Formats: sequence, C-alpha cells, structure tokens
Amino acid sequence: MPSYSAPMRDIHFVLKDLLNAPAHYAGLSGCEAPNEELMDAILAEGAKFAENVLDPIAATGDEQGCQFENGKVTTPPGFKEAFKQWAEGGWQSFAVPVADGGQGLPSSLGTVIGEMTGAPCWAFSMYTGLALAPVTCLLNGGSEAQKQRYLPKLISGEWAGAMCLTEAHCGSDVGLLRTKATPNGDGTYTLQGTKIFISGGEQDLTENIVHAILARVEGAPEGTKGVSLFIAPKYWVEEDGSLGEFNNISCGAVEKKMGLKAQATCVMNYDGARAVLLGEENRGLEVMFKLMNTARLGTALQGLAMSEIAYQGAVGYARERLQMRSLTGPKNPNGPADPIIVHPDVRRMLMTQKAIVEGQRAMIYWLAQQVDLSSHGNAEQKENADQLLELLTPIAKAFCTETAQESVYLGMQVFGGHGYIAEHGMERIARDNRISTVYEGTTGIQALDLLGRKVMGSGGTVLRHFTKQIHKFCESHKAREDMQEFITPLKDLNAQWGEVTMAVGEKAMSNADEVGAASVDYLMFSGYITFAYLWAKMAELALDKAAEGNTDPLYGSKLKTARFYFQRLLPRTAAHKAAMLAGAESMMAMGEDEFMF
Amino acid sequence: MPSYSAPMRDIHFVLKDLLNAPAHYAGLSGCEAPNEELMDAILAEGAKFAENVLDPIAATGDEQGCQFENGKVTTPPGFKEAFKQWAEGGWQSFAVPVADGGQGLPSSLGTVIGEMTGAPCWAFSMYTGLALAPVTCLLNGGSEAQKQRYLPKLISGEWAGAMCLTEAHCGSDVGLLRTKATPNGDGTYTLQGTKIFISGGEQDLTENIVHAILARVEGAPEGTKGVSLFIAPKYWVEEDGSLGEFNNISCGAVEKKMGLKAQATCVMNYDGARAVLLGEENRGLEVMFKLMNTARLGTALQGLAMSEIAYQGAVGYARERLQMRSLTGPKNPNGPADPIIVHPDVRRMLMTQKAIVEGQRAMIYWLAQQVDLSSHGNAEQKENADQLLELLTPIAKAFCTETAQESVYLGMQVFGGHGYIAEHGMERIARDNRISTVYEGTTGIQALDLLGRKVMGSGGTVLRHFTKQIHKFCESHKAREDMQEFITPLKDLNAQWGEVTMAVGEKAMSNADEVGAASVDYLMFSGYITFAYLWAKMAELALDKAAEGNTDPLYGSKLKTARFYFQRLLPRTAAHKAAMLAGAESMMAMGEDEFMF
Repeated sequence: MPSYSAPMRDIHFVLKDLLNAPAHYAGLSGCEAPNEELMDAILAEGAKFAENVLDPIAATGDEQGCQFENGKVTTPPGFKEAFKQWAEGGWQSFAVPVADGGQGLPSSLGTVIGEMTGAPCWAFSMYTGLALAPVTCLLNGGSEAQKQRYLPKLISGEWAGAMCLTEAHCGSDVGLLRTKATPNGDGTYTLQGTKIFISGGEQDLTENIVHAILARVEGAPEGTKGVSLFIAPKYWVEEDGSLGEFNNISCGAVEKKMGLKAQATCVMNYDGARAVLLGEENRGLEVMFKLMNTARLGTALQGLAMSEIAYQGAVGYARERLQMRSLTGPKNPNGPADPIIVHPDVRRMLMTQKAIVEGQRAMIYWLAQQVDLSSHGNAEQKENADQLLELLTPIAKAFCTETAQESVYLGMQVFGGHGYIAEHGMERIARDNRISTVYEGTTGIQALDLLGRKVMGSGGTVLRHFTKQIHKFCESHKAREDMQEFITPLKDLNAQWGEVTMAVGEKAMSNADEVGAASVDYLMFSGYITFAYLWAKMAELALDKAAEGNTDPLYGSKLKTARFYFQRLLPRTAAHKAAMLAGAESMMAMGEDEFMF
Repeated sequence: MPSYSAPMRDIHFVLKDLLNAPAHYAGLSGCEAPNEELMDAILAEGAKFAENVLDPIAATGDEQGCQFENGKVTTPPGFKEAFKQWAEGGWQSFAVPVADGGQGLPSSLGTVIGEMTGAPCWAFSMYTGLALAPVTCLLNGGSEAQKQRYLPKLISGEWAGAMCLTEAHCGSDVGLLRTKATPNGDGTYTLQGTKIFISGGEQDLTENIVHAILARVEGAPEGTKGVSLFIAPKYWVEEDGSLGEFNNISCGAVEKKMGLKAQATCVMNYDGARAVLLGEENRGLEVMFKLMNTARLGTALQGLAMSEIAYQGAVGYARERLQMRSLTGPKNPNGPADPIIVHPDVRRMLMTQKAIVEGQRAMIYWLAQQVDLSSHGNAEQKENADQLLELLTPIAKAFCTETAQESVYLGMQVFGGHGYIAEHGMERIARDNRISTVYEGTTGIQALDLLGRKVMGSGGTVLRHFTKQIHKFCESHKAREDMQEFITPLKDLNAQWGEVTMAVGEKAMSNADEVGAASVDYLMFSGYITFAYLWAKMAELALDKAAEGNTDPLYGSKLKTARFYFQRLLPRTAAHKAAMLAGAESMMAMGEDEFMF
C-alpha cells in the first residue's frame, strides 16, 4: 500500500524555480501575497494534513464505503473528524476574498494544497471541494443579501454544498434538463425534480448542505437558453442565518460505483424544495460558467493527484521487489535476485509515470497562476491569462486525466499480480481515477470544446496566441546548442499544430462531422506539445543550474526525464496527427445497423 | 447492463470465410473432424450455454463474490449448478484425445466455445479452464497409470484442478520458488510450502481438486533447473480411483481483488501433502511448458471475450442514449435529441472497439488452428505452425490483452457517467479484464520472450518465417488496385519490421539492456502489423464477395472496419517505432535514488 508522502521537492521546484510563485503572488492585486516563508509554512501544513489525517482513512474509506439507510448517508470512519479538522484549520476560506470573509490567498496556492489532499484520498477532497461549489456561484452571481446569508457558514465549513446538474436523461446535454422551478411570488421558487450523480448531495459531515441547482422556470425557452441557477439548502436558512425547517431535499439512493466509494454519489429528490434564484432567470449557465471551468481544472488536478500516488507506489515497489537478474549482470549479487527497478522495461513504466506526473504538475500549477491573473492581474495579464485558459483548460482537463489513466495503469502493472489485490492499494487508485476522464465533461466533450468552440470558433486566434508564445521561446533559444534536442522537435511540432488545424478546418467547411472526427486526436496532439513546451522549459532550468555548478540531483533527474519525454512519449504525436488527418469518412461510412449483426 | 448475445455472424465469418474451418478439421489426423453442420450445432449449443446459463449469474457473481469461512470457499449463487451443467454437457472432455477417454474434437473449436462462455462470465470460465490444467500436464508428462488414475474424473468434470506456480516472493521469476518436495521412498513425495494466486485452489464445485504444483526436490539445483512438477489431489486418490483421506492441502485465504470476484484466488498451504511426480525430477518446466503456452493463448482469449462484451454494451447504449444533435443536422428530429451513435467521436470509439475485437478474433482463431496443426498436421504443417506459434503466442497474449484494455476503457467511456455505476455492468468488465495484461506473464515478460528469446534467439529466423508470408501475400496482390490501400502500408510496415529488428539487434550487441528497453514497443509494433495482415485478408474477402454480387451488409461492414483500422489505428506503429529506436539511454541514465526525492 503506497503511503503518501507529499512530493515537496518537486512542488518547490515547480513553484519556485519554474513559476517564481512568491513574485507572482506579489504582483497580484486584491489578493494576499504570501512571501516564500509563509508559502512554505502553508505547504507544510497542507502536507501534514494529507499525510497524517487523510492517508490513514483512505483504504478503509474504500473498503467500507458510504452506508445508506432510511435516506441517511453515513460516511466511512474518520471522514467526519477529518472534515471537522479541515474546517477548523480554516482551509475552506483559503481563497475566498477577504471582503467576503475569507483569507484571500491566491487560488493557485490552494491548487497545490488540493493536489496534496487529493492524492491520498480524492473521495475526501470531493467533499471539501464541492462544499465550495455554492460559494463560487454566490461570489459570481449572488446578491449581497444572499452572500451574507450563506457564505459565512459555507466558508467556515459548518455547512457543505453540492453542484446539481445531471438528470437521468441528460448529462453532457444539459439543455435537456427538466427540473422545474415555480415562482412563489415572494422572490423564492419551488423546485420539483430529480437529479443524479450528485456528489455529496447527502452526507453526515455538516449540519446543512447548500445545493446549487440548475432548473427550468415554467415557461422558459427550451434548451440551454431556459436554464436558471438556484440555491436551495437542505434546511431552510432564516434571515438571521439560523436553520429553519427541512426543505424537502432528500436522497433517494447512493450509487454503487467502481471507485470513490467513500464519496456519496446521490440521487437527489427536490420535492417542493424552496429555492432562491442566483442572477437572472434563464441565465443560469452564465453564472455557473466559472464554476464549470474551476471544476475542469479541479478534475485535471485529480489526474495529477492520482498519477502522483500511483507513481509513489510503483517506485517504492520497484525498489523493494526482487525478481530476476539484470541483463547486464547482477546488481544485487548478495540477494536472491535484483530489485526490479534494474530492468529496462520497469524503468520504461516508471519514467513514463514520472514524465507524466511532473508534466501535469508543471501544467496545472502554471494554469492555476493564470487563474490568479485572470482575477487579480492587470489588464494585459488578464487578457493573456484568459486567452491561455480558453485554449488550455479543455486540454488540461482531458490530457491530464487521460495520461493519469495511463499512469495508474502502469502503477498496477509494475506491481504485477499484487497490483490486482486490494491490500496493495494500487487497484483502488485505478478505480478512483477512472471517472476523471468522464465527469465535468468527457474527453470527447473537452475535445469538441477545444477544436470546435475555442480554436475554430475564434478563427484560430486563441491557438495562435499560444503557438506564438512557443515560437518565441524556440526563437530565443536557437543559439543554445545544449537545448537543441528539445527546441528542434518543439519548433517542428509547434508549426505542425498550426498546419493540422488549418487542414482540419478546411475539411470542416464542407462537413461539420470532420471536427468531431478529429477532435480527440487533436486534443491529445495538443496536450503532448503543451507538455513538450513545459518540459523544454524545465530542461533549460536544469541545464542552467548545472552550468552554475549546482549539483542537486533533482536537476539532473529533471533533465533525464525531459529527454525521456522527448524521445519516448512525444513521438505519439505522429500517430495522433495521422489519425486526425485521415478524416471522418472511415467512421461515418458505417450504417447504424452495421455495427453489430 | 449488456446482455450477452454470441456474435454468431462474425464467428461464422472468421471460421468459414477466413479460415475454412471444416476443411481444416478434415485435414487433421488423430482428431475428430466435425463437418459444417456439426460445427454449427456445437457452436449453437455453446452459445446457448453462454447466454442462458452464464450471462444470468455473472452480475450477482461479481456483487457477492466468493465467501471464505473456516477454510471453506463458497462460490456465488448459480456457479455450482452451472459447473454441473457444463460437466454434464460433456464440455470438459471436448478436446481430450479419444484414446484418453475424451471426444477428440479440435481444440480450435473449443477456443470458440471459450470465447462465448468467457464473454459473459470470465470468472466462471476460469474454473472450467483451470480444471483442465492437470489434464494438460498429465497428457504431456503423465505415465499411463497416472493418467488412468486422474483423467477420467477430471474430464467428466467430477473433479477440477488448479495450476500452482506463484509464491509470495516469486512470480515472473519462477526459479526462486521454495516449495519443497521430500521423497517418501514409495514413489510419492511430501510437499511443504505455500503458493499464492491459485485460481480455483479451493471451491465448492467439485468433490476433489487436483493440484499441478511446481516444487523443488531436496538437493535440487538452484533456479529453474531444479524445478519439478507434481500432482497432488486435495483428497488422496486410491489405486481404484476412490477417494481417500484429506491430503493436507488447505486454503489459507481468498484474496480480495479488483475484479473476477466470483473466482476464488487462493493462498494454498501444502502442509505435508502427498504428491506424485510428473515426468522426471528437475524437468518440471518442460512438462509444464505446453500448459504455459495454452494458458497464454487462453489469456489472449480473455482479451477477446472482454472486448466483445464491452463492444456489445457500448453499441447497444450508443444506439439508445439520446444526447445532443448531430453537427450535420438532426437525425432523430422527433425525439428530444439524437442517439449518440450519430456523433463522430462516439463512432471513433465504437469503430476502435470493432476493429480491435474483430482483429483479435481473426488472430486467435487462426492461431488456434495452428495449435491443431502443431499436434495433428503433417510434418510440414507442424513445422510451419510451430514457427508461427513461437513468434505469435507472446504477441497474441500481450497485444490482445493490451488492446482489450483499450476496448473496455472505451466501452465505459461511451456510457459516460453511467459507465462508472455498477448496475450498467461496464465497470465490471473493466475490472475483470484488468488482470489479463498481468497473469500468465505480464506484457513486459511476453515482450522479452518475443524479442529476446524468439526473435533474437533464433537469429531472426522465426520472424522471417512470418514476414515472408506477409511479403508473399503483398506480392500476390500487387496487381489488385482495389487492395492497394491495404497492401501498400502493409508491405511498407512489413519491411520496417525487419529493419527495426536489425537496428535493435545491433544495439543489443553492445548493451543487453537495449532488448528490454525496446521490447514492449517492439511487441506492440508487431501486434499492429499482424492485425494489419489479417485485416487486409478480411478486406480482400469482403471485396471479393461484393464483386460476386453478394450484398450481405456484413461484408460491407468488414471492409469499412478494415479501412478504419488502416487509417486510424495502424499509424500508431510510427510512435512505437520511434520510441523503440530511441534506445535504452533515456531510461537507464536515472540513478535508482533519483526517481523520487
């Protein structure tokens, strides 16, 4: 069973060497700016919580899961105490603006804490994460009165929350939703409907649960243009903030699912629940929009967290497990066999995991800084950050979860047969991770968003904004001989990125299906290039440190991993490129009744 | 929940159109030769058993799993009855030679039955499959007296069996095993030791369980040269075949694992168990060898079975689930949305699954015929079959299970969030399949066997035997214009296969680690080419049928799938080629302590 140890050295490398976080914080306005010492102290506290509080409850959480009886959910042993401790630690108010009662710390620093708590026990961190869903909605679209009524207890962790979109007949196609809101004439509405897949929709951690619910006001237009966003608490909240009567929000069932068993995934019935509207009628998706983007980066973060714990498990096992001799002669001559880390193919798996997890960390922390800048930067920074986030949010979500899928697979594979056995903990990681390429928009949905809406939708502007940045980087390094092994392929692929976009775009002019047909390969292609850009930057740092005479082996390890990434993983772009340029014909030609006979 | 329906049309296509099975059977000697009518009747019976007996017990089998109390295993509801019905149907003696009391049917036909029973419930088919493990060992290395004592009740299904290799400290490295055999002086031995991961080591299906056990006779040489093969029944078998006393073979635990929960994976204690030697002392692996090859193809078959049921589930769901509109205009204008099968990316997933499962079926059925020929063909056929099996057994095992991994992943992905929920049955398929790339030799072990032992070990002979066959096929079709979209890339890749082998071989001369570093990419590269060869043959058949005026849509569907395979999946060879030619340096450069800080 991998015992989680926060990867502080690599976290520090990304935050300090690559992203210069303290300076970044200091440049934000309307946001607290921790100096390096404070940042380190916060990170150390987060690591302690992850290692000492969450790691010990994760395995039993999976084994025992959530119990459901007579409408009540009981979370596994230790979850309630952990939630309380988390709330008392002040973590729920971390990134909430000071003006709204929070600590106003940069959300990018919260992202790092999210990786650490998520790695040992993602099921737990979903409770704390979704508890903030109504907070985000309120900050984005709530009135002052609404904020005053709900925010204080949400950010103190006395209450939690839930994000309620999906219904049995509508997942990706949110415009189909049927939950009905009827105005009561007093400014409140009555909700009627059933939602499914509501994480933390019911639980025993907090005295109240505030649901952020998409519903349709009677007479609203069909489709997404008739969707409104409501807040409805499990127990009504009186004007003075005290709890009123039960609000007819009940849990009909807890799903039995592949993983994340400690997380209660609920069928929720809103059977005449009283609710308040956030923002305007029929404009619920606009208010929800920010939450959706946050949730997408949050799911990318799950990919990182799961990749990290899978990697830790695999490296630990590969160094201990003795099996067969190295083909180049015994490396552990006094033992019965060599540790399997001597075998090239085991190293191929570990290096793949390492290149993935460190690439994910660089990408996600970098994007988290863009989120900071989007809210707290100057106009130019905001414009730049928004363009990057437009393009890179769907890539991060899908690419970091798809590569996590590969990493958790390899983690089990390194363990051999023992990986399949529950007690070693590796199969739980694979089960917990499996949903990450699905929820908050499947890989296919992200890919359509990327290629159809973002790239084509902007006439290529959003893409060029980033490819120019890569181009500039390549140009400014063309004289550095020691960087050419990275710059040459990066420059080449960056040019290809524009070319394939043009090629697919041209085809799409005559057949709209060409976009969908190319989209996932396009997204994966884009993801590999984005990682290549970040790995080239990390390689540069490592080379510079070595040139300065710095002998910290972390830098050497970075350089070797960058080389592995460029030599072994980046060539996958060729397969994705060929596939996407093959066009839609080979998949659309098949009649619906010809798939199976 | 996918309800299994045996894919009879495709099975018939492969058996009749592609492989001409009845003529193949007729050409075998020392083997019964069913004509087409009998073959069809046998297949229909197998399908009925799979659909009516096994499909209904699979989900509860997973839910309830095996119970373990006081050393006793209780299999899930229906398993005992299904096993009895299977045995009474005579299926256990299917391919056992008539001279040994069996029906002497071609084992390749049994393979088809194995796909059908395995698809709904692989956990069940492991009981029947492993019941035959000691049968294979006895046929291969048993004396006449031993065969008479054990075979009749094993092939009647009154008894079952188990294959006992792994110990806690030795999996892939079988030479490390410690289970000790002490001669009793009367021709029998006493076994002392503990084995793990023993599938069906204990169960409540049969009155006796015959264990085929690898152990080390006291004083034997170290490593694989000191390993002997024993037969030890749970209850001693007297000379007259009646059951004697309990033989000190007990189950210490049943593993809690990711999937295959209805299959009892046991820790087995041999605490003074009486055993008989099969073959000679220290030559156990030779006797076991045939079983190991059978087990590898049997695991490839698991890949096929799991891919099939995942595909059936996904196609069914994609045709029913309504979500969003086609980008080229509504296809179901009277409904609230279009079925998701209209969306190109959903089709990309389904077509990938289709190309995988039909490629697997063609490959495995074809190799099963080579197994027939290896035992029952003439000298030339035997020589040809053995060369093909040498090369293609590790490829089939690893490539069919790795591609199955992709297929079951896509099957869940098509279901969206519902795929993660147990009641839809798709996550069970993914969990059940996950071990297939591990047991009977991991993908890494297969790849080393392929590249190190088979290809390099034969100086390339074994590879050339097959690439020549592909070359001949390409040459004989060079005048067929309608085949060039398949022949051109196949011919090119076939030439590359030889070239990359040379390139890796040259590197390996100076560094043995180059073999391990290239091996898995080499295997995947080889697998894609093998599938391309088979898909080209299937495309040819489809084109010929169309030219004959045959309008059966099955042939049109084959041709379209072949095109998808060549355009969308085969380009992956480029990534594997680049990765394997990159060499070992990027993975071996890392110090063992530089993986994690």
